[in-house]
Amino acid sequence: MHNPQLNRNGELQHLLTIEGLPRDIITAILDTAVPFTEVAEREVKKLPLLRGKSVFNLFFESSTRTRTTFEIAAKRLSADVINLNITTSSTTKGETLLDTIDNLCAMQADMFVVRHASSGAPYLIAQHLSAIGRDDIHVINAGDGRHAHPTQGLLDMYTIRHYKKDFTGLTVAVVGDILHSRVARSQIHALTTLGVPEVRVIGPKTLLPAEVEKLGVHVFHDMRAGLKDVDVVMMLRLQNERMQGALLPSPQEFFKYYGLTLDKLELAKPDAIVMHPGPMNRGVEIDSAVADGPHAVILPQVTFGIAVRMAVMSILAAH
Amino acid sequence: MHNPQLNRNGELQHLLTIEGLPRDIITAILDTAVPFTEVAEREVKKLPLLRGKSVFNLFFESSTRTRTTFEIAAKRLSADVINLNITTSSTTKGETLLDTIDNLCAMQADMFVVRHASSGAPYLIAQHLSAIGRDDIHVINAGDGRHAHPTQGLLDMYTIRHYKKDFTGLTVAVVGDILHSRVARSQIHALTTLGVPEVRVIGPKTLLPAEVEKLGVHVFHDMRAGLKDVDVVMMLRLQNERMQGALLPSPQEFFKYYGLTLDKLELAKPDAIVMHPGPMNRGVEIDSAVADGPHAVILPQVTFGIAVRMAVMSILAAH
Amino acid sequence: MHNPQLNRNGELQHLLTIEGLPRDIITAILDTAVPFTEVAEREVKKLPLLRGKSVFNLFFESSTRTRTTFEIAAKRLSADVINLNITTSSTTKGETLLDTIDNLCAMQADMFVVRHASSGAPYLIAQHLSAIGRDDIHVINAGDGRHAHPTQGLLDMYTIRHYKKDFTGLTVAVVGDILHSRVARSQIHALTTLGVPEVRVIGPKTLLPAEVEKLGVHVFHDMRAGLKDVDVVMMLRLQNERMQGALLPSPQEFFKYYGLTLDKLELAKPDAIVMHPGPMNRGVEIDSAVADGPHAVILPQVTFGIAVRMAVMSILAAH
Repeated sequence: MHNPQLNRNGELQHLLTIEGLPRDIITAILDTAVPFTEVAEREVKKLPLLRGKSVFNLFFESSTRTRTTFEIAAKRLSADVINLNITTSSTTKGETLLDTIDNLCAMQADMFVVRHASSGAPYLIAQHLSAIGRDDIHVINAGDGRHAHPTQGLLDMYTIRHYKKDFTGLTVAVVGDILHSRVARSQIHALTTLGVPEVRVIGPKTLLPAEVEKLGVHVFHDMRAGLKDVDVVMMLRLQNERMQGALLPSPQEFFKYYGLTLDKLELAKPDAIVMHPGPMNRGVEIDSAVADGPHAVILPQVTFGIAVRMAVMSILAAH
Repeated sequence: MHNPQLNRNGELQHLLTIEGLPRDIITAILDTAVPFTEVAEREVKKLPLLRGKSVFNLFFESSTRTRTTFEIAAKRLSADVINLNITTSSTTKGETLLDTIDNLCAMQADMFVVRHASSGAPYLIAQHLSAIGRDDIHVINAGDGRHAHPTQGLLDMYTIRHYKKDFTGLTVAVVGDILHSRVARSQIHALTTLGVPEVRVIGPKTLLPAEVEKLGVHVFHDMRAGLKDVDVVMMLRLQNERMQGALLPSPQEFFKYYGLTLDKLELAKPDAIVMHPGPMNRGVEIDSAVADGPHAVILPQVTFGIAVRMAVMSILAAH
Repeated sequence: MHNPQLNRNGELQHLLTIEGLPRDIITAILDTAVPFTEVAEREVKKLPLLRGKSVFNLFFESSTRTRTTFEIAAKRLSADVINLNITTSSTTKGETLLDTIDNLCAMQADMFVVRHASSGAPYLIAQHLSAIGRDDIHVINAGDGRHAHPTQGLLDMYTIRHYKKDFTGLTVAVVGDILHSRVARSQIHALTTLGVPEVRVIGPKTLLPAEVEKLGVHVFHDMRAGLKDVDVVMMLRLQNERMQGALLPSPQEFFKYYGLTLDKLELAKPDAIVMHPGPMNRGVEIDSAVADGPHAVILPQVTFGIAVRMAVMSILAAH
């Protein structure tokens, strides 16, 4: 089957998911991001790569933090950015999603950054663009339902490579609510594609997908066993709506078994790094002593995230 | 009476309505828009004509689509754009409309794009600017109550001229809820001003203004009779609030009599074009087979709309 | 105690309050603003001083007017501006204020413009930036609770200096709800720091802070007595929530005793100027005949406010 993310030359046409993305494309994105981390430290944090391009932030689900990171990335590349919060817009007037997209295409959009509560919405848009012959417009998935959040996965890979240099000798644990996390899926695909030999998932049975082993990971229900000698701990955010559900006893109980404390972290390698996609629930999935401690690389993740988004946008715009 | 849209030299000072706008000014706007359609296809879609100018989008009534088209047009001309959603702003603090305007003038605004639920609000603002001697500030009406939506009328004229080259041999039908449509009024004025010899309006008696014939149009209640041999079909959007009202039996009934189907469209000339201001109610005023068919020029209307708004802004800024 | 607004060289690091701000720094801000008032009258109202800088408007409390003035000021200095309305954002996801700030720092912010309902929030942010060693990021207080609104105070001083040239011979009256006004506190500190020999506050006992005399002002409960021979009348806005409270009989009653009318204004010097921070409650604290009359400099205040905000931003960015 044709990979809808790649054009006929095998170049990145859209960024929809890390699943199925070739290793050399992932590596090219990470390599492209490196100089962009330096741009952010310059006096004038501005490059002309997207000058005159129109980037539409299409947020069908509100997320100020994610929207902000894409807005900054696009503006640092000199793009014109239009923020559209579509929940309060035309769709309430009875217009379909694809009519909205057709209209924005007719306004000569160059890029859509799409956040949607429904898994697959960015795919639908990408397919439609292909069907109407608008290969000049690119889609970036900024989170779709439970499915994927590929720029988060990429910035996580950037962070690991930054601190650990190489993926091929690492043991990495992903901890928490794997079942409902679009971040976790993107991470696991990225880690296995980049050659991490040992990927572990740690969580209660109720928060792990059925047959998760088929993704090529080792499953642990006991966090202490799972953290033994890992190089990287990737914590997940526990969604608020899960905390009241039947799947979990209480936030306090969750913290006891699956919250990352200094105590549990001691089981990892001495130079282990701790990651979190944010926003953190302190005292639920992570203890403040860890979040603010020397192993945490949570804020560098945010910084690298801007550079990675700039890289994705500039690669797409070049095709 | 002095035309408040023109300055003493007879140049465009504000764009408030197409009614009373001289033919040569309409033509000049359409001519100016032509090269702007090419800008949108360039690699760098940016011109410096409004560089350093402050354009305020004053939306007293929310309309993401219209706001977006003006925002894109202004940004492609390099203006600084400030979006103000005034419903949630100072007017709730008891400040009057004109106090708000005075304040924005004092911030050295150059242009106000005004959307308001009350007919006449943009006039009131334009009169006030004249009264306080701020001829350097220009107003564009982006839709006021049931009154006017002149940039929509202008982009419609641009579209007709693009496909039909000349207005003087055309038969044009405007179909649907003429009574409540600010778009229809702008269209009819523009068509007659530009010399279209035969303008028809088609709709049920309950949705036509009293004495509509005085605008210089022929009235049809039977859509099939009205569409006979027309060159251009301009569909109107049926507002949701009408669908539940006493004026109409049901959306299905409306579609039966006044919805544009392939069947009815066959009565028009073979090269007829179909227009719609959007967003469309598919299956109410227009069938999807028509909306997505070869006669429809609904998406080119959107593209031309950006160019026409750039033309209006650049003409105003030059005076 | 170290003044958190100044860096080790005694230069402005943050603008949090006028209280404790040295006179030479206030004067330097006013002096820097002078040429910026001319920028606003140029054809191209744009300077490159903040090019490539990221200015975040962090509005934890909505205020379209104040946000707009900072947005315009930043854009005229060529900054990239990101508007964040935080009430609807991450803090609802359980993230703390300082986690939000940490994240924005990691996105390489250069400046935070902070509006918050809690007094002291901008201080908390400034202290945190110092604690994490981010002296490259600057905070501007755009209004915190009842505490301070320093750019308002500065633009008021700019306005007085513009019309009266010198502070040292003036009598200035601040009138209305001193108790709940963050504007009044900023004004009084600025006036006394700049050497105004006679600062008066006029209001009912219920709307004056206890021991207000200790700020170095003369207290008047009778407005006519207080206005006698003043050079400057600074009216305050009566907050809507006060009008229904127990502190005041009714808006009509307030107007009778403390509303500025032409009649009362005649007691001031013939060349007195009348100021108001806006938005005005016409007929409550000020009569329209005064607001729109020849003594009012209320709209010039707005114009100077943009220049003063540009001055503050450019001074901070230079350190």
